Amino acid sequence: MLPGIEEIKNAAKRVKPYVHHTPVFESRTVNQRTGSNVFFKCENLQRMGAFKMRGATNAILQLSESDRAKGVVTHSSGNFAQALALAADTLDTKAYIVMPSNAPKVKMDAVKDYGAEVIECAPTLESREKTCEMVRQKTNATFIHPYDNMNVILGQGTAAWELIKEVGELDILLAPVGGGGLIAGTAIAQHYLLPESQTIGSEPFGADDAYLSMKIGKIQPSVNPITIADGLKTQLGENNFPIIQKYVSNIIRVEESEIIVAMKYIWERMKIIIEPSSAVAVAALFRKRERFLKKRVGVILSGGNVDLTDLPF
Amino acid sequence: MLPGIEEIKNAAKRVKPYVHHTPVFESRTVNQRTGSNVFFKCENLQRMGAFKMRGATNAILQLSESDRAKGVVTHSSGNFAQALALAADTLDTKAYIVMPSNAPKVKMDAVKDYGAEVIECAPTLESREKTCEMVRQKTNATFIHPYDNMNVILGQGTAAWELIKEVGELDILLAPVGGGGLIAGTAIAQHYLLPESQTIGSEPFGADDAYLSMKIGKIQPSVNPITIADGLKTQLGENNFPIIQKYVSNIIRVEESEIIVAMKYIWERMKIIIEPSSAVAVAALFRKRERFLKKRVGVILSGGNVDLTDLPF
Repeated sequence: MLPGIEEIKNAAKRVKPYVHHTPVFESRTVNQRTGSNVFFKCENLQRMGAFKMRGATNAILQLSESDRAKGVVTHSSGNFAQALALAADTLDTKAYIVMPSNAPKVKMDAVKDYGAEVIECAPTLESREKTCEMVRQKTNATFIHPYDNMNVILGQGTAAWELIKEVGELDILLAPVGGGGLIAGTAIAQHYLLPESQTIGSEPFGADDAYLSMKIGKIQPSVNPITIADGLKTQLGENNFPIIQKYVSNIIRVEESEIIVAMKYIWERMKIIIEPSSAVAVAALFRKRERFLKKRVGVILSGGNVDLTDLPF
Repeated sequence: MLPGIEEIKNAAKRVKPYVHHTPVFESRTVNQRTGSNVFFKCENLQRMGAFKMRGATNAILQLSESDRAKGVVTHSSGNFAQALALAADTLDTKAYIVMPSNAPKVKMDAVKDYGAEVIECAPTLESREKTCEMVRQKTNATFIHPYDNMNVILGQGTAAWELIKEVGELDILLAPVGGGGLIAGTAIAQHYLLPESQTIGSEPFGADDAYLSMKIGKIQPSVNPITIADGLKTQLGENNFPIIQKYVSNIIRVEESEIIVAMKYIWERMKIIIEPSSAVAVAALFRKRERFLKKRVGVILSGGNVDLTDLPF
C-alpha cells in the first residue's frame, strides 16, 4: 500500500529539472525562542509560491505520451490550480482548470497567465466535480486530483526528501495538514530516510478534521471550517488517510490568534513571506515547546501566496 | 586614496565568521520583465535585517584590544543603531547608541534587546552629535560613524564581494545610495574584481542629494528629503563622495510610486520582504529597462526592516 522508497526517490529525480531546489533557512531567533534547532524548508520560495508545484509536476510526468498530449484537468480555487497550470505550461501540456465562479479574480488571472483554460462553475463541490467530469469527457484530459492522487502525494514528499538529504538527521518533521498531500508525502520521505524519527501534522482548531479523523479512525468531513488558513479547509483524501494514520505521529491543533502571531513573527524575523497555512506549522512549534525542545526539527513552510492588501496584522 | 584590493579582501575574511553569507536569488519573473539576468544579493536576510551588520562588524574588529574594551558609540535612529548594537554584542564589546527621542519605540527596544545602552537626545543633528561626543568623552568609547568611515565602507562592500565571488561575471552592480557606505563599498569590490563592469546607484527623486552632488561635483546637503525610503535620507560622507565620484557610473532616480510598486512586486513574486530603500534599486532596474537589457545585473537588496502594521500598499 505504501509506495516504496524507489518511488519517492524517483519522484525527487523526476521533478528536479522543473522545480526549484528551495533553500533551507535557519533562524537564531527562532532557535532561541523554541530551544530547538529548526530547519525551514522554504517551499514559499518554490515556483508559483507553493509546494504544490512538485505534486503537479510529478503527476503530469507520470502520464503516457498520448495522455499528456490530451492535457490535464482539475478543480481547485487555490494553489493547486496555479500549480497544475504552471506545471502543464512548463511541460508543454494543456491544462483545464475548473474554478468556482466566486474564486478571486486575481487567482483566475494567474491561472490564465500560465496559459491554462479556466472553466467557471457554481461554487459548490457538486458543481465542481460535475463540471470537471464534463471537461474530462469532452477533452479526454486526465483528471489530476489536487491531493488524493498517489503521484501528487509522492511529488509533495520530495520537499521533505530534499530537506533530509540536505540537513541529515532530524528528530521531527512538521507540516500543515489540508487534504493530506503534503503531510502524507512528508511521512513517506521520513519513513524511508529517517525511520527512527517522527512526522507531526498541524491544523487549525477551526478546521481540525484530520485530527478528528485520526482520533475516530475514519475520514471526517470538513464541516464549515473557519480559519484564516484557507489552504487547510479541505478534508482528507482516501489515498492520504491510511498513510497519515500509520505514519503520522499526531496532529497539533492551533488557535487562529496563534497562526497570525506565528505568521507575523516569521515575516518580521526571517524577512520571508509565508501564507497562513504555513504559519500553522510554526504556530504548532511555538505552542508545544516541550515537544520539540532540544530536537532537530524540519518544518515545511508550504507556501507564500498572500493577498498583500488584506493582511491580518 | 582608494583602499587596495587586499583591504576589501581582508574585510570579507574578517567579517565572515560573524555575518550571514546571504543567499543570491534569481527570479524568472523578474528576468522576463526586465529582459536581463538579475542576481539579487539578499542582505534583507542578513543578521538584524540589513547589510549594515557588515560595516559595523568590520569597524569593531579593526579596533585595538584596549579600544575594544572601552566600547563603541554612534548616533543613528535607523538600521546602523541596531547593527552596531548587535555587532558589539556578538564581539563582546559595549555599545552606546545615541538616538533621537522621537525614534520609534520598537527601534529603541530592539537596540536595547541587543544589550546596547541607549542615550536619548533631542531630534536634531546638532544634539545627536553633541550627545555622542559627550558619551565618547565620558566613556572613551570609539565613535563609529554609520557610513563616513572607511572600515564601515569596506565592510559594506563585502556584500558585493561575496556576490561577485559567487556568480562571477556581472555587467552592472546596482545599489541604493543613502550616506554612501553601501554604494562606495560596492564600487570598490566591483573595481577590483570586475574592472570592466559598472556600479550604478539609485535614489528617490525626493532625496536626490547624491545625484546632485555628482552633477555639481561637491557634496550637496540633503535638504528636507521626502521619501518612503527613510534609509536614504542622509547626505553623502566625506570619505564616500570621492569614491562615488570616481567609481560610480551614474545614479538613477525613481519616483515614490515606482518604489512602492517595486517593493510590492518583490514581495509578491519573490516572497521575500524588502524595505523601501531596497526597492529603490529594483525600481531603478524597472525604470531604465534599456540600460540593463540583456545584461547580467547584480542588485544589492539592502535590507528588510519594515513596520508590517504600516505598509504603503
